[in-house]
Amino acid sequence: MKLSKIASVLGCEFDAEDVEIVGMNALRDAQDNEVSFVANTKYIKDIQQTKAKAVIIPKDMLDHLPEGCVALVVENSYWSMAVLSKYFAPPIEDDTLPPATIGQGSRVSDKAEIANGAKIGKNCTVLAHVYIGANAVIGDNTVIYPNVTIYRDCVVGDDCIIHANTAIGADGFGFATNNLGEHKKIYQNGNVVIEDDVEIGSNVSVDRAVFGSTLIQKGVRIDNLVQIGHNCNIGQYSVFVAQSGSAGSTKLGRNVVVGGQSAFAGHLEIAPFSNFAARSGITHDIKESGKTYGGFPLMEQRKWLRLQAKIARLLK
Amino acid sequence: MKLSKIASVLGCEFDAEDVEIVGMNALRDAQDNEVSFVANTKYIKDIQQTKAKAVIIPKDMLDHLPEGCVALVVENSYWSMAVLSKYFAPPIEDDTLPPATIGQGSRVSDKAEIANGAKIGKNCTVLAHVYIGANAVIGDNTVIYPNVTIYRDCVVGDDCIIHANTAIGADGFGFATNNLGEHKKIYQNGNVVIEDDVEIGSNVSVDRAVFGSTLIQKGVRIDNLVQIGHNCNIGQYSVFVAQSGSAGSTKLGRNVVVGGQSAFAGHLEIAPFSNFAARSGITHDIKESGKTYGGFPLMEQRKWLRLQAKIARLLK
Amino acid sequence: MKLSKIASVLGCEFDAEDVEIVGMNALRDAQDNEVSFVANTKYIKDIQQTKAKAVIIPKDMLDHLPEGCVALVVENSYWSMAVLSKYFAPPIEDDTLPPATIGQGSRVSDKAEIANGAKIGKNCTVLAHVYIGANAVIGDNTVIYPNVTIYRDCVVGDDCIIHANTAIGADGFGFATNNLGEHKKIYQNGNVVIEDDVEIGSNVSVDRAVFGSTLIQKGVRIDNLVQIGHNCNIGQYSVFVAQSGSAGSTKLGRNVVVGGQSAFAGHLEIAPFSNFAARSGITHDIKESGKTYGGFPLMEQRKWLRLQAKIARLLK
Repeated sequence: MKLSKIASVLGCEFDAEDVEIVGMNALRDAQDNEVSFVANTKYIKDIQQTKAKAVIIPKDMLDHLPEGCVALVVENSYWSMAVLSKYFAPPIEDDTLPPATIGQGSRVSDKAEIANGAKIGKNCTVLAHVYIGANAVIGDNTVIYPNVTIYRDCVVGDDCIIHANTAIGADGFGFATNNLGEHKKIYQNGNVVIEDDVEIGSNVSVDRAVFGSTLIQKGVRIDNLVQIGHNCNIGQYSVFVAQSGSAGSTKLGRNVVVGGQSAFAGHLEIAPFSNFAARSGITHDIKESGKTYGGFPLMEQRKWLRLQAKIARLLK
Repeated sequence: MKLSKIASVLGCEFDAEDVEIVGMNALRDAQDNEVSFVANTKYIKDIQQTKAKAVIIPKDMLDHLPEGCVALVVENSYWSMAVLSKYFAPPIEDDTLPPATIGQGSRVSDKAEIANGAKIGKNCTVLAHVYIGANAVIGDNTVIYPNVTIYRDCVVGDDCIIHANTAIGADGFGFATNNLGEHKKIYQNGNVVIEDDVEIGSNVSVDRAVFGSTLIQKGVRIDNLVQIGHNCNIGQYSVFVAQSGSAGSTKLGRNVVVGGQSAFAGHLEIAPFSNFAARSGITHDIKESGKTYGGFPLMEQRKWLRLQAKIARLLK
Repeated sequence: MKLSKIASVLGCEFDAEDVEIVGMNALRDAQDNEVSFVANTKYIKDIQQTKAKAVIIPKDMLDHLPEGCVALVVENSYWSMAVLSKYFAPPIEDDTLPPATIGQGSRVSDKAEIANGAKIGKNCTVLAHVYIGANAVIGDNTVIYPNVTIYRDCVVGDDCIIHANTAIGADGFGFATNNLGEHKKIYQNGNVVIEDDVEIGSNVSVDRAVFGSTLIQKGVRIDNLVQIGHNCNIGQYSVFVAQSGSAGSTKLGRNVVVGGQSAFAGHLEIAPFSNFAARSGITHDIKESGKTYGGFPLMEQRKWLRLQAKIARLLK
């Protein structure tokens, strides 16, 4: 999409060099053929260092733009980013892609739907009513149980098991809201990458990234009815017990254990080998590894147990 | 169904005029060709004002019945209502209905099932393994991802997106229990109505109404793994974050924001522009709009934060 | 599988009589043609009384083995059990089984998949995109809504209703972890048994047992988005409200009522007619029947209410 067209879609002035823009991305990750945006002063450092060709930006943050980066000046930059995201959304299915390929020894139900462009490795089992979207890639020896949905562009590694009725790669929960309280969808043009030897339970939701990838690293175990928000990065061998979840962009180190019905707020960093008792509510980073936490607000689990004992004494 | 037949099904005496009854409904909403019921003295005002042709009623509440309204006197009126509900349940599928119609420009997978009587609007995308039930209506430009189930009689508006593995219109959780502890299903003969520009995540359950409609108003955003009980009414542009939910018959004003893992009890009224922090437990009406709450029991969020600080001090 | 082969798979010495072993089982339930395991000193009594032909056991517990029971001595017996479990896992589908049988009067969608070896009773309704696995048995008059997955060997009784997108019989959440933090799947070779007159909501996960059966007794009612872990036993007429759940091996008496978002830890015994308010967290046995509990940590509900009132006073 031409940069001039983007300016026109967003209704902003444009007199820069007109180049081809291939996508949208975060300030830190954008390349010089991508457009980015900024909506919050806490990202000023990221503006200063961005390599994006152009940035959707409110007037009062213009000063921070690096030289050579085109300003797309708008009133509500988050809303404008949402408007533009639709233009970079690929079609859900694409008949012009080549037919799916299926590796040797794989057993794929004729009641599964494998979209054009998808690739399934060797010795996989894909059961009835599975959907594998355009350009999705499934590794070798992977089992996908009935009624699983894998959205386009998602990647599943070797030796994985995905249980029934799980959704991999649905859109992350992203939208802008204007001052009338109306919402505008932010198209989620990233994907989900699941590494090797991962098992995911039934009725799980792992959302695709807005940009880039939601990442489930090697050896992770996810129980039933778990929510993994867009752009999370789940460290290897981490464990999510049933009905737990994470909001978007949270990053877990390796071997983190998340108790049942626990949840992470978004944009956190969690040290490796952290343990969370059932129903923990985690709203801040965990920097020291190997400890056990519980409660909401979160505290060390042994403190939480002592605190509950003290609280019970209030009744006496 | 003849009123005399209903009396016979319920095992009650009958010597009134024998008219055709077309359905069951709540006391307030029943028309004069419908039957209603009362099981609780708190609805006495509703009995007095009902337009129902007949009411299933225990002996000791008979005095409140308006003139001309036929009494169907039973011992356990809630149980009797459950017994009768089955007789008004339409067939799940109905081969006598006309074939489904699909609007111009819509792309419907041949691995989707569109039941007789359903109508799909223009320029929709309906992916593989979707089920759209009898007489369901889908508006224009709506996208329904794989493995979504939309039960019979449900209505989805224009410009909606429903993500994979979501169930719209399953039966609300309704049953009567007798004094042996046995349960009798209350057939849920209402539907779900989803207005325009609604996006619903993956693995969501929106239950159909027992009578009337569960309503999701224009512009609502629902994240993954959310539960919406029967007969809820979700105000426009309201937002449910992942793993939150509502019990039945709760009514939200517009732009209510419901944090992750929060939940509403049933039969509440929530003022517009209310905000609920993650894991709020809401068990009473909210009358003043625009405030932010948290905790369980619920309190204003700033109070909850202060309280947690005080509680933490108990440890010292 | 020959016992000598098992010893070879586990890399342990073997000089006993070489007999055919037909399966794995818990110490208490194992028969003399099965192999069992012990990984924890709290099961010493169970070792002493086991009828298993052989037990996977660490060296330091050897003394407790009954005479005639073969010791399969390994370093990490839980890990070894996981390794072996894969060898007893039946194929997901089995083309050598006879074609499925469907009882008189049943309506089965041609877009459902009924695997070889399955049996469907009379007058059932099985809708599109349902999957019924190998050797699964469905009783009479049962309704299975679209996109439900029933895994192999599971049993559903008469007069049941299973709502859309529910998964019955996915693998329980079982794995061993070594001292590098890597996980090894424990294949779940048991099943789920659902008795008569059970209704299960949408997006529910009922996991199959590791050995034996996960049991949902007669008349149980399960709402949407509920998690039932492997080897649970849910007493008749018990009720799970939406988004509640149970970890594995918990046993409920009859008519237990579980409020929304409540959860049980694993391996508990809950007295009949116990009631749990919404968001109860149950981590210990309940021995006295008929009481009402709430909170986390759990207490009697009337105490929890009093306690919350006291806590609120901290703010003054």
